[in-house]
Amino acid sequence: METKNILIENGTLITPIETGFIKTIKNASLLIENDKIAEISNTNKISKNGVDEVIDANEKIIMPSIINTHTHVSMSLLRGLADDLELNSWLNDYIWPMEAKLDNEITYYGALLSHIEMIKSGTTTFNDMYFFMEDVANATIDSGIRACLSHGMIDFGDEEKRKNEIKKSLELLKYCKGKDRLRGFLGPHSPITVSEELLLESRKIANKYGVGLHIHVNETKKEVDDILNTKNMRSFQYLENIGFLGEDVIAAHCVWLSDEEIDIIKAHDIKVSYNPSSNMKLSSGIAPIHKLLDKKVLISLGTDGSASNNNLDMFEEIKIASLLQKVHTLNPKVLNANESFKLITINGAKALGLDNEIGSIEIGKKADIILIDTFSPNLTPNTNSLISHLIYSGNGSNVDTTICNGEVLMENKQLKVLNEKDIIEKANSINQKLKVTI
Amino acid sequence: METKNILIENGTLITPIETGFIKTIKNASLLIENDKIAEISNTNKISKNGVDEVIDANEKIIMPSIINTHTHVSMSLLRGLADDLELNSWLNDYIWPMEAKLDNEITYYGALLSHIEMIKSGTTTFNDMYFFMEDVANATIDSGIRACLSHGMIDFGDEEKRKNEIKKSLELLKYCKGKDRLRGFLGPHSPITVSEELLLESRKIANKYGVGLHIHVNETKKEVDDILNTKNMRSFQYLENIGFLGEDVIAAHCVWLSDEEIDIIKAHDIKVSYNPSSNMKLSSGIAPIHKLLDKKVLISLGTDGSASNNNLDMFEEIKIASLLQKVHTLNPKVLNANESFKLITINGAKALGLDNEIGSIEIGKKADIILIDTFSPNLTPNTNSLISHLIYSGNGSNVDTTICNGEVLMENKQLKVLNEKDIIEKANSINQKLKVTI
Repeated sequence: METKNILIENGTLITPIETGFIKTIKNASLLIENDKIAEISNTNKISKNGVDEVIDANEKIIMPSIINTHTHVSMSLLRGLADDLELNSWLNDYIWPMEAKLDNEITYYGALLSHIEMIKSGTTTFNDMYFFMEDVANATIDSGIRACLSHGMIDFGDEEKRKNEIKKSLELLKYCKGKDRLRGFLGPHSPITVSEELLLESRKIANKYGVGLHIHVNETKKEVDDILNTKNMRSFQYLENIGFLGEDVIAAHCVWLSDEEIDIIKAHDIKVSYNPSSNMKLSSGIAPIHKLLDKKVLISLGTDGSASNNNLDMFEEIKIASLLQKVHTLNPKVLNANESFKLITINGAKALGLDNEIGSIEIGKKADIILIDTFSPNLTPNTNSLISHLIYSGNGSNVDTTICNGEVLMENKQLKVLNEKDIIEKANSINQKLKVTI
Repeated sequence: METKNILIENGTLITPIETGFIKTIKNASLLIENDKIAEISNTNKISKNGVDEVIDANEKIIMPSIINTHTHVSMSLLRGLADDLELNSWLNDYIWPMEAKLDNEITYYGALLSHIEMIKSGTTTFNDMYFFMEDVANATIDSGIRACLSHGMIDFGDEEKRKNEIKKSLELLKYCKGKDRLRGFLGPHSPITVSEELLLESRKIANKYGVGLHIHVNETKKEVDDILNTKNMRSFQYLENIGFLGEDVIAAHCVWLSDEEIDIIKAHDIKVSYNPSSNMKLSSGIAPIHKLLDKKVLISLGTDGSASNNNLDMFEEIKIASLLQKVHTLNPKVLNANESFKLITINGAKALGLDNEIGSIEIGKKADIILIDTFSPNLTPNTNSLISHLIYSGNGSNVDTTICNGEVLMENKQLKVLNEKDIIEKANSINQKLKVTI
């Protein structure tokens, strides 16, 4: 990977800081040395000695790159193949039959297609659960971004399947180990699709290797009914009872939560990934994020896969995230612009256990940084609140420059990595493989 | 205005047709003669004789330009000045004090700023209610787009104010008369901010001049409570009782509707403009669009002003529109992709009484056409449903070319009208006038 010393100057730096507030520095300059942030100045006084590249951030916001905490990136190839359906039919009648046709090539190019979309819209870290994950890992290495990767384990109580899933998960952990921008996670799919044995085995492995656990919980009402029928408890009560929970668990969706479950989430410091577009599109329901925020549960944001969103634009997602909570509670102060800004930056980093490295612009952290071009009609006037503009008016196309680990992946809206034309053409051509007669 | 003969070829044409279905023509060509659509072919057999410009639409969707049926375009200068507030405080404590400082220059440049945003995101017709409307008219003339314009009348029962508001409205109708892309409308603000006399006078003038009526109705619960307190009826019952209603009425918001009001809306063929982002952001509530659709009420889509949205991107708005109805009803089939496509095209035209001229691609209609670049990561694979991609994954930045009334306003994402740099700089500099000590 090519890294070098980069000076970014004359921008407006916006970053979360440790106190929980958002800090804005006008006329900010920032020095990147190799993969790290080496210096930050509010006076443009950083020396150009030894600097390989100077990026002028005049009229631009300098902010941490976005972190997407729940994805299935290879599903971008399934975008627009099955819409306007409820989750069970969508999954059983369309998605799973198509996923049965997945192979290494499809998964790799699906991931690359998503990576282009993410780089262009300012996301440089994603938390992914899917199949053929070594291919997703390879795509992530090739694109220059950062990921936590888990093999999605499903056993439906079958012991042989379970062993195989665990084996694949261990192989993935091994594959990711020591690779600079990759972390292996464990991905037991959900409390209703995996056995208690698999959940416990996952917990054991997570403890042994110190890796995170990524799981879907209570996405639909049906899921809650199912677990009540089989376990006579709600999901988080069940997960607590068997000893699965811990602060290393990132739980996606969490749409249907009882007050008791919210208390359990808080007690175990579970990290909740809020996925509003997917929950809306599949009409799963509205997650009680306002209640979780009241209890100071850590909320981050995920798009879910492109088959149920149908894009990976985290600026669009955070607007929808905030607006949905406001209208759901009839309280316009919920998930305000500053709080929303944290969801897509520092909270994402905390959710993934990466907040020592990314999620804010601080000296010593990794240089995962994006520039937003405020000289755009939808972000004008620039004399008004720029954080409001980012959350309520911006979209991914306002991202001008994307840097991950000190490497410039896009500059002036031009990709510097990957061949966009080839990847789009490849995605169009291999997509035929996924189509099934339904 | 410069018009000429333009041939668009090799695209995928998607348009609503009279039966209510959406038609897709692959390898479509289309001939524009001056301001009108002269020929459509599915075989690329249109002669290039006499053609001034050929636009290659390979890898592009050719579709009708978007129609935004509820705006206050000059409010773009207030974007990001007051967020995370409920409507009454937002309006009384922030917006109205700022609007007291409006003048011709602010209104003109606010409108131009919005016009750039609209042209870039594919909207060429908007239905606007505001103040200094001759300046909005001038901006519309200068930008090359199309508008229905109404002076927003508020009298709070004061006779002198009423006369003045009616006078301004009549002046605006006169100003718009005979101007190619402008229609004058009447804009009694809402049943609670204007007197019965003003509503009746508006109805009389609408009948006399054959112009439409644009009004806010039942945006908030408070508004319903207020009218129940003063009139002992709900808004649509009151409007029906006094004889205000008619098929020329376009009612924005309609968030809080009783079943009786829905019947009244249907009986009088009222056109409802659904404004989901604004209703969510101000936490006004969720309009019962699913019920209105069941009754076959004509629904179109509006962004409202940029102070409560906070942008004018109708692709983002239609995604939010559809997803919000799905999650609200827990029915993912509501407002499906095809139905949603009609909301932003032909339904908008019908709402404004312009469906003989715009809203679909048909021979003899005005050439209001946009091209969407499908060679984009968020619209890939192109082998899947393109209508799904437009509604659920696209955003305004996917618009490649915008044509209104036969004039190319943007091509290959480059504006051909207006000076974007000057207008953004002007918007930034004059915005200071609007700031008040609060």
